[in-house]
Amino acid sequence: MTDAAATALLQELTRIVGAAHIRSGADFPARHLQDAAQLPPETPLALVRPGTTAEVAAVMALCHDRAVHVVVQGGLTGLAGGAHPLDGEVALSLERMNAVEDVDVIGRSMTVQAGATLQSVQEAAAAAGLHYPVDLGSRGSCTIGGTVATNAGGVQVLRYGMTRRQVLGMEAVLPDGRVLSGLNRLTKNNTGYDWKEILIGSEGTLAAITRVVLALQPRPSAVQTVLCACGSTDAAFTLQRRLEQGFPGGLLTFEGMWRDYLDITRPALSGPPPFTDLPPLALLIEIGEAGNERPGDALLELLAQAMEDGLLSDAVVAQSLSDRGRLWEWREANAEFGRLQPKGLHYDVSVPRPAMDEAIRRWQASIDAHQPGGRMAIYGHLGDGNLHLAIFPPGDTPIDPALTDPVYHTVAALGGSISAEHGIGTRRRDALAYSRNDGERAFMGDLKKFFDPRGILGAGRIL
Amino acid sequence: MTDAAATALLQELTRIVGAAHIRSGADFPARHLQDAAQLPPETPLALVRPGTTAEVAAVMALCHDRAVHVVVQGGLTGLAGGAHPLDGEVALSLERMNAVEDVDVIGRSMTVQAGATLQSVQEAAAAAGLHYPVDLGSRGSCTIGGTVATNAGGVQVLRYGMTRRQVLGMEAVLPDGRVLSGLNRLTKNNTGYDWKEILIGSEGTLAAITRVVLALQPRPSAVQTVLCACGSTDAAFTLQRRLEQGFPGGLLTFEGMWRDYLDITRPALSGPPPFTDLPPLALLIEIGEAGNERPGDALLELLAQAMEDGLLSDAVVAQSLSDRGRLWEWREANAEFGRLQPKGLHYDVSVPRPAMDEAIRRWQASIDAHQPGGRMAIYGHLGDGNLHLAIFPPGDTPIDPALTDPVYHTVAALGGSISAEHGIGTRRRDALAYSRNDGERAFMGDLKKFFDPRGILGAGRIL
Repeated sequence: MTDAAATALLQELTRIVGAAHIRSGADFPARHLQDAAQLPPETPLALVRPGTTAEVAAVMALCHDRAVHVVVQGGLTGLAGGAHPLDGEVALSLERMNAVEDVDVIGRSMTVQAGATLQSVQEAAAAAGLHYPVDLGSRGSCTIGGTVATNAGGVQVLRYGMTRRQVLGMEAVLPDGRVLSGLNRLTKNNTGYDWKEILIGSEGTLAAITRVVLALQPRPSAVQTVLCACGSTDAAFTLQRRLEQGFPGGLLTFEGMWRDYLDITRPALSGPPPFTDLPPLALLIEIGEAGNERPGDALLELLAQAMEDGLLSDAVVAQSLSDRGRLWEWREANAEFGRLQPKGLHYDVSVPRPAMDEAIRRWQASIDAHQPGGRMAIYGHLGDGNLHLAIFPPGDTPIDPALTDPVYHTVAALGGSISAEHGIGTRRRDALAYSRNDGERAFMGDLKKFFDPRGILGAGRIL
Repeated sequence: MTDAAATALLQELTRIVGAAHIRSGADFPARHLQDAAQLPPETPLALVRPGTTAEVAAVMALCHDRAVHVVVQGGLTGLAGGAHPLDGEVALSLERMNAVEDVDVIGRSMTVQAGATLQSVQEAAAAAGLHYPVDLGSRGSCTIGGTVATNAGGVQVLRYGMTRRQVLGMEAVLPDGRVLSGLNRLTKNNTGYDWKEILIGSEGTLAAITRVVLALQPRPSAVQTVLCACGSTDAAFTLQRRLEQGFPGGLLTFEGMWRDYLDITRPALSGPPPFTDLPPLALLIEIGEAGNERPGDALLELLAQAMEDGLLSDAVVAQSLSDRGRLWEWREANAEFGRLQPKGLHYDVSVPRPAMDEAIRRWQASIDAHQPGGRMAIYGHLGDGNLHLAIFPPGDTPIDPALTDPVYHTVAALGGSISAEHGIGTRRRDALAYSRNDGERAFMGDLKKFFDPRGILGAGRIL
């Protein structure tokens, strides 16, 4: 683009959103230059912050007409580089469209603009006596639009599913500026193609999601939190089955933390760790119990039996909200990796449960080969097969990025996925073939061309 | 098509599937001429019954090449005319592709060919100690492929969601014969566009689904069934809230039957009805209770409280499996409408819960205006807002089909949907605009052209 064309475009964008809501050149705000993937900043053309769907549509139509690339930004908490603006791109931030527009208590739904934070949605649901069940560590800054665009998971997928399952309706702006509006609030609505479903998880590359209708849930009563010391994945899965049988629909969370994770993150704990001897595998479990029973009795009985049967060597049950916070602290200490072990490689994979131990053995063998003395911190959503994996080099050695190939090769060979919940973005684009075959990738390319024939939206992400 | 062209096509189709698996002309089997919508039979060109995905692909590619229309058939239990073959169409039945190929007990998934019946899937899950939670009256004949293509609902949507939620992976044949294969078994797999999601609920108009991977659930232990006599929808919704709070994740079924439904179907019961005085609204409720508690106690307490509070006037709790069958009999007596009241108009609508009473008042007013003396039988999935509605003329009067417009007008005006779970097919095609706006319908047309540029698959359905 010539300087004159860029200047003209900036003028037109300014007419659409107003001078207060556009920044370019040296004024481009630093916090919009990178998402949580922390890739080196590039030089995007401008940041525009539309306040209405009509403004989003006008920005898109203009950029489509001029063949200018656009990247949609939410809370910039993504780990795949999807919202990281590239050279020459217009960054379209939805942060001004952050209103919770309506909470329908009887119909149990909420209509919300895409830029609202996850936490504001959770709080608005709670204020109405209801529950929005997607929960992530970045709840305070990630936006609902971002969680829908990336089909975010989190710590209660086992019970409530991923973000896809919460979305009843959607409004979105197509790359050419057309607005698609289907703000359905009904649980059941089988009337033609459910177009919103293909936008969920498309990481902002097919349309800009501007509004969603979310299903809300009854609030789980009497949540019990327990941290267990466990000897093996087999024992953990046996315990999970017992919990599912004992509390049908009650198991909210079943997180795992392997020993090296516990060891590496221990310095980040605010107090003494709940276990003095680190177990091979710690389990963080939450159960939403029936409100009419004395809470906890059935759970304590089940845990006692599990210890008698050798599935667990210890179990700490939270007796208070502050106890609960203390038990979660270890699980959320992964947020401190950047400080504790800044040089790591990080992965977000699904592995079929029967193959999990084999995957861990093969990853360790790859580390031994490429990065002798390297350590592997494994943690995450054990109950649904989604492991987060961090590999750290020993001492001052630099990390060997060539480790990624054997790690992903193992995942693919065992029937897993190279991205369980974080998405592909720019960072895992080269690895997509590990999880999707040629026919699927070709068809994804066709879909992309159908939605965005000029290729202006989220170019260079996913495909 | 000329006779010579038709003859040549039949020869080529015969080469693909073998002479034993093709029928045409007078040999076209009567049971493949109509689905449950019972529209007047037309004269399709041929019935082909491929046995493999490769054969499905070859049939599709051939028909695509010759611009011959194709309709996919499963169990022919659909109520929207989607599988009803039209003049000149090739009916592609998947009934030979009916194998349950694999049950993964630890990963809790099943890989199954599209032509397997729902019942065979339920039974294979049960044989593995697991549960496939979609359940419909036509379970013995409807196919898994049909339930996925129509995103079938059923009586446990409240707890487990519609069919969409059960589908982990899919193999499908596009109209030009390309095979898309994504037989994912993982709960979490965020790797690019989830193309299967747009095929779910597309009623066989975008691709022929040939295989699916289904998620299986733990078997609910100690299911309690109870039939309640209730005074109003308000009372019913209050009870539903209490059940959801008292049994988090435990409410499986919350069905409603209004008084005229009970009265009209009473003659179909095999024994005396559970209530002598018909209540304004009967509720059929199922709860999956925690296995470690004495089943039923908490439920009985909750019901006793509901009676004390005036929400219910009576409640019959099943004490045995045969009791359970007797309680379900009234709910499933709608299958006898054809015998009891053959002349009715039938609808499948979603209505927002706060608007339900108003919808019923308006429907009655429309009946009073168009069909004085007509009766309205309302029943269905009260807990998720999906009502089935049958309108019967008085005595020998013919039914007035002009009633459909005001019925749908009321649904749309109150924010409902003209098809909750049965789909659009050919029968509700003219009514799609009641539930989808111009922009959505235009975009659906674009999607259809993208998948099927020659318009050979399921032509005349949905759009």
